[in-house]
Amino acid sequence: MSKTSLSGFPEWLPEGRIVENYVLEKIRQGFELHGFANIETRAVEPVSELLRKGETSKEIYLLRRLQEDPVKAAEDPRQIGLHFDLTVPFARYVLENRARLNFPFKRYQIQKVWRGERPQDGRFREFTQADIDIVGDGELPFFHEVEVAVVMARVLSSLPLPPVHIRVNNRKIVQGYCEALGIENVEGALRALDKLDKIGPGGVASEMEELSFSTKAQEKLLQMAQIKGDGSTVRSRIQELQVSSELLEQGLDELTQLLDQASRRVPGLVQADLSIARGLDYYTGTVYETTVEGHENLGSICSGGRYDSLATDGKRTYPGVGMSIGVSRLVSRIISGELATASRKVPSAVLVAVTNEEHREDSNKVADALRERGICADTAPKAAKFGKQIKAADQRGIPYVWFPDSSEVKNIITGEQVQADPLSWKPDEQYLVPQVTANN
Amino acid sequence: MSKTSLSGFPEWLPEGRIVENYVLEKIRQGFELHGFANIETRAVEPVSELLRKGETSKEIYLLRRLQEDPVKAAEDPRQIGLHFDLTVPFARYVLENRARLNFPFKRYQIQKVWRGERPQDGRFREFTQADIDIVGDGELPFFHEVEVAVVMARVLSSLPLPPVHIRVNNRKIVQGYCEALGIENVEGALRALDKLDKIGPGGVASEMEELSFSTKAQEKLLQMAQIKGDGSTVRSRIQELQVSSELLEQGLDELTQLLDQASRRVPGLVQADLSIARGLDYYTGTVYETTVEGHENLGSICSGGRYDSLATDGKRTYPGVGMSIGVSRLVSRIISGELATASRKVPSAVLVAVTNEEHREDSNKVADALRERGICADTAPKAAKFGKQIKAADQRGIPYVWFPDSSEVKNIITGEQVQADPLSWKPDEQYLVPQVTANN
Repeated sequence: MSKTSLSGFPEWLPEGRIVENYVLEKIRQGFELHGFANIETRAVEPVSELLRKGETSKEIYLLRRLQEDPVKAAEDPRQIGLHFDLTVPFARYVLENRARLNFPFKRYQIQKVWRGERPQDGRFREFTQADIDIVGDGELPFFHEVEVAVVMARVLSSLPLPPVHIRVNNRKIVQGYCEALGIENVEGALRALDKLDKIGPGGVASEMEELSFSTKAQEKLLQMAQIKGDGSTVRSRIQELQVSSELLEQGLDELTQLLDQASRRVPGLVQADLSIARGLDYYTGTVYETTVEGHENLGSICSGGRYDSLATDGKRTYPGVGMSIGVSRLVSRIISGELATASRKVPSAVLVAVTNEEHREDSNKVADALRERGICADTAPKAAKFGKQIKAADQRGIPYVWFPDSSEVKNIITGEQVQADPLSWKPDEQYLVPQVTANN
Repeated sequence: MSKTSLSGFPEWLPEGRIVENYVLEKIRQGFELHGFANIETRAVEPVSELLRKGETSKEIYLLRRLQEDPVKAAEDPRQIGLHFDLTVPFARYVLENRARLNFPFKRYQIQKVWRGERPQDGRFREFTQADIDIVGDGELPFFHEVEVAVVMARVLSSLPLPPVHIRVNNRKIVQGYCEALGIENVEGALRALDKLDKIGPGGVASEMEELSFSTKAQEKLLQMAQIKGDGSTVRSRIQELQVSSELLEQGLDELTQLLDQASRRVPGLVQADLSIARGLDYYTGTVYETTVEGHENLGSICSGGRYDSLATDGKRTYPGVGMSIGVSRLVSRIISGELATASRKVPSAVLVAVTNEEHREDSNKVADALRERGICADTAPKAAKFGKQIKAADQRGIPYVWFPDSSEVKNIITGEQVQADPLSWKPDEQYLVPQVTANN
C-alpha cells in the first residue's frame, strides 16, 4: 500500500496497481466469457433512493456544492449522495432503461463505492466492488441462481488466492422450517443464526431465549443451522430433523439442484451452510457467502442472493439474482500478504539507452519502431554512463536494455546480449508484459 | 445515452459502454506502449488541498456523513471533497510516496472527476479524465515536453474520431515578448489573448484597452497571438515583429524543437498557435490544447502544460509536464453522433439454444466448452421455439446460435449453418469479440 494520509481510502504503488489490474482483468474476462455485459452507473444517487434500505443509512456520504448553504443543502430532498453499493444504482438504471434493455438482462459492473463509516480493522471507506446480476422482466427462472454461483466460482478460482469456498443457503428453507415449527419471528431467527460463526451455538441460543423462542424451537433451529455439506447430506440431515413444510421442500429442492449442478460444473467449490442468513429483508431464494482458505478473517469476500423484487415501478416487478466481489479487500490482502507480486513496476519491456543527448532522437526511433509492433518501450531519462542507465532499468524491473549505437539488446535478468533489429526483434514471451505471479 | 434523471451525470446503455471501453482500451494501450505506469488515487482530498487552486473552488463537491451535523461538518478543516481533476491528487501522491517512486516518474491515470457546477451545454458534473504526467525530482529536461505531445497525438489518432489538431504554445514566448515590450501585467495579457478565438481581435483589443495597455502593445500582442503554423513559420513571423528578449528566444527554441520533432514523429498533428494561454498561474513552459476537426464546438478535448512546480515539500520541488483527455465529452460525442458503433450489445459470440428445460444441462456443457477456449457464450434464456431463440440472439447482436441436438452452429448474420464440435469450433475472427467500427 502507498503511504496515505487518509485512513480508509486505500492507494497502491505502481507495482501494486499492476497486481490490482491483473485481478480486475481476470474478473472481467470471467464475467464476459459467461455473457455478462458491462455497464457503469453514476457515482451519486438522490438521497431518497439511498435511504430506501434503512439499515445502511448511517454509512452514506452526502454531497454539497461548496457555495451551497450547508443547512439548506441538508434540508433539500433532492440532495445527492455517493452510492454505497452497486445494487441500488443498478435497480434504478433498470427501471429508467427498461424499454431499451433485453431481459433477462445480465450485467456486470466494476466500480468504486463509498461508505462513510469510521475505518477500523481493514474496513475501507472507498473500495471497488465487482458485481454480476441477472434481472428478469416479471419472472426469473431458478437456473440463474445456479449460474451466478458457477460464474463466481470460476472467476474467484482464476485469482491468485488460496482455494475459495462459496457457501450457500436458501431462504425458503429457513422460512419453511420456521413455519413448520410455528415460529412467526423469522427475521429474529435469521438474525440470531447469522451470528453462529461468531458467538457459537450457546450465544445463538441465548439470543433466541431473549426472543422468547421455545426450547424446542431453539434446539431445532440450531440443529438445522449446523448442517453443512453437499446436496444429499443436506437432504438426509433435514429429514432426520423431522420437520417439513411445502416451502421447506421447495427450498430443499432448489438448494440440492444448485449443489448437484455446481458439483459437476465447478467441483469442490460450492457447499451448503444452513447458518447463512445475510441481511434481513430483500433476499427470497438462494443466498451466497464466500470465504478464502486461511483468510477467513477477511469475512465473506463475495456475497449476494436472489430477490424477487430487485426493482419495481408499481406495475411491473423485476426479480434478480446477483453476487458482489469485495475487490479492494481481496487486493489489499494479496498485496500486503504478497500472495502475488508483479515482475516490474512499469509496462515497458525495453529501455532504450541514450548515448548522448544530441543523439536522443536515435533512441526515440528505436523505441518508436518497437512500439509500432506492440512492444512497450521507453528511452533512458539521461544520457548517463551505460551502467547507470542499466540501473535505471533495473530499478523499474525493465528486463531489456537496448543500445542503439551497437544495435544490441541485453536481457539484464539473464545477462544475454544479442544483435537486434528494432523492426523484427521480439522479447521472450515471459518478458513481453509485466507478469503477476502467485507466491504459494 | 441512457435515460437518466440527474442531468450532468452521464450513463450509457450496454452498447454505448462497449464503445467507451473500446476508447479507454485504446488510450491505455497508447499510454503503456510509451512506458507510462498506471496508478489510481482516492476520489477524495482534504478540502484544504482542493482549495489551493483558488479559481476552481466554486466547482467542488464537499462530503458529509449523513449523521454528521451539517454546520459542524462545514466548519471542520479536515472536511473532504471529491477531486475535480487528477493533477491535484497526483501531486499529493508524489509527495507522499516520493521515497518509493523512481524519478522521472511517468504515470497515467484514468478516473472519474466531479465538478459541482450547474450543467449546461454538454458540461458534465461527473466525467472521466485520462491523464499522463511526467514528474522529475528537482529537474525535468525539456524533451519530456515533446514526449507528452507525441504520445497524445498517437493516442488520439487511434480513436474513432476525425483528425485532431494539437495546438501548442510556450509560456516563455508570451512572457519574454511582454517583457521586451515593457508590459508588466503578463497575466492580464494572457487572459485577454486567451479569448481571441471567442471574441476576435477587436474584443481582445478592448479588453487590453481596459487594462491600459498602450496602442502599440495591443497591436504587437495581437500580431503575435495570431501566429500559427510550423517551427520555421513561427520563427520568421516573430522576427518580422522585431521584438526580442532572452526568454522569448528560449521559448522560441523550445517551441520550434517541439514542432520539428513532432513533424517527424507524428506528422501533421501538432501546430503552433500563439494565442493559447491556458489558465493563469502554474504553467511555465509548453502549453497544449487539442481540437477535433468538425467538432470545434467541443472545445479542447486534450489540454495541459509544463509546470516547474507540480509539487513541493518546501525542500524539494518536483517539476512536471502533462496532458489530460476529457474522455466523457469525447465518448458522449462519439455515441450521440454515431461516430462509431458497436456490433453488438453483449460480449457473447454464441448463444447456445435450449431444446427443452430438461436438457438445459446439455446447452450448458456446450457453452462451458466454448468458454474454456476463450469464446464468450451464453445459453438461451428460454427453451422457446428456435425462431424465438434466434430472435433473442438477434436482439442482442449475438452472431452465432448453436443447436446442441444437431451439433450445428448457425451464423445468423450470413445465414451459414455448419456441423460443429464445441471442443474445436472457432467463430470467424471478426465475430469473436464485439467490433467497434468508425462510421466515416
